Amino acid sequence: MVRQTPKSEETQARIFAAALQVFRERGFEAATMREIAASAHMAVGAAYYYFDSKDALVMAYYERAQNELSPLIDAQLAASRTLEQRLRNIIEQKLDYFEPDRKLVSALTAHIDPAHPLSPFSASTAPVRNSDIAFFKRAIDDSSMKLPKSIQPHLPRLLWLYQMGIFLFWVFDRSRNQERTQLLLAKTLSIVLLGLKLAQLPPLRPLFRPAGELLDTFFGEA
Amino acid sequence: MVRQTPKSEETQARIFAAALQVFRERGFEAATMREIAASAHMAVGAAYYYFDSKDALVMAYYERAQNELSPLIDAQLAASRTLEQRLRNIIEQKLDYFEPDRKLVSALTAHIDPAHPLSPFSASTAPVRNSDIAFFKRAIDDSSMKLPKSIQPHLPRLLWLYQMGIFLFWVFDRSRNQERTQLLLAKTLSIVLLGLKLAQLPPLRPLFRPAGELLDTFFGEA
Repeated sequence: MVRQTPKSEETQARIFAAALQVFRERGFEAATMREIAASAHMAVGAAYYYFDSKDALVMAYYERAQNELSPLIDAQLAASRTLEQRLRNIIEQKLDYFEPDRKLVSALTAHIDPAHPLSPFSASTAPVRNSDIAFFKRAIDDSSMKLPKSIQPHLPRLLWLYQMGIFLFWVFDRSRNQERTQLLLAKTLSIVLLGLKLAQLPPLRPLFRPAGELLDTFFGEA
Repeated sequence: MVRQTPKSEETQARIFAAALQVFRERGFEAATMREIAASAHMAVGAAYYYFDSKDALVMAYYERAQNELSPLIDAQLAASRTLEQRLRNIIEQKLDYFEPDRKLVSALTAHIDPAHPLSPFSASTAPVRNSDIAFFKRAIDDSSMKLPKSIQPHLPRLLWLYQMGIFLFWVFDRSRNQERTQLLLAKTLSIVLLGLKLAQLPPLRPLFRPAGELLDTFFGEA
């Protein structure tokens, strides 16, 4: 992406808006840079100057989503100190935010492969992912729920993975108003919370260290 | 698929073998029915008579894999009564079986959408999926591990999902000899087993019913 004068910023924003429109109407796979440029009333070469591929537009979409979601999630966190309520609010806020682009997002779920730049597990999406994981860290940190210190470092990534699972289910949920996702969210949340309450029982302690090591292996750390 | 005379069976097997060869060399997405027919030394129209699409060839691949894996997994189950060993054996057997086709399988992971016929969650793949879930039921049923009755009905599907997760990780694991998958398998298996041992503690009982309902919601049952 090019970021310079107010003029170029405006042009960039125009291409981005046109791209989202074309993705929504034609689907991500079918859309071409040529159509996007035409819809933004400019030459395709000029559009390429700002975004060198459809993927670059998607990356800009991820970044914008994260920036726009940030104050919304701040507000959700401020609204409750209950961990259950906070987790529900964060996840519902996100589903709500992505609702108009459910079709675009569903095309992107084909990129699970961490080697694909648009994968939620890739190096290129690390800044977006880390900022997303940080929401869960904040949800936990000053919540009213007491949690064993030894699970706290692992929990944000675990909750982030949980959220990704709900998100994936939602993307393909054809039930009316995604009622099945609502049900899944309610049921999984109560299990997650019950699990966290039970995590305070001493016999469960032996699970913490292997669970943490597991997450390190999964995320390719340590 | 057409199943008739020994002659037509032989032709069908020839196309199938050619297809696997082409998929391995050229990748699933790039391969065409025309190339597959050419590689089987026949006209493309004749190939279409036996398999009406690349997807039909993949479905035949899934079915063949399930049939060939069945006696191998029987042998693995007979080799040990320890649940941990059995789970490890089943999963390692599968990774071993699919190793030559890791690239083909990775192309197929793009189909998570249950509405896609080749998705592991689709209606068309239900027979393969159910036979696969049945392996886990048998692994549990006469194992040496005592499990609370109330979790037994849910466990085969849960372990199947766990296996799918390992499989997905393996498909994209670029470490040498997929060492990260080996590590992930070892760590997750010990957590699963520890979890199952802890499941015998009365305070964990409240988790069973919601976990079962959750699986019903996920699999679209009840």
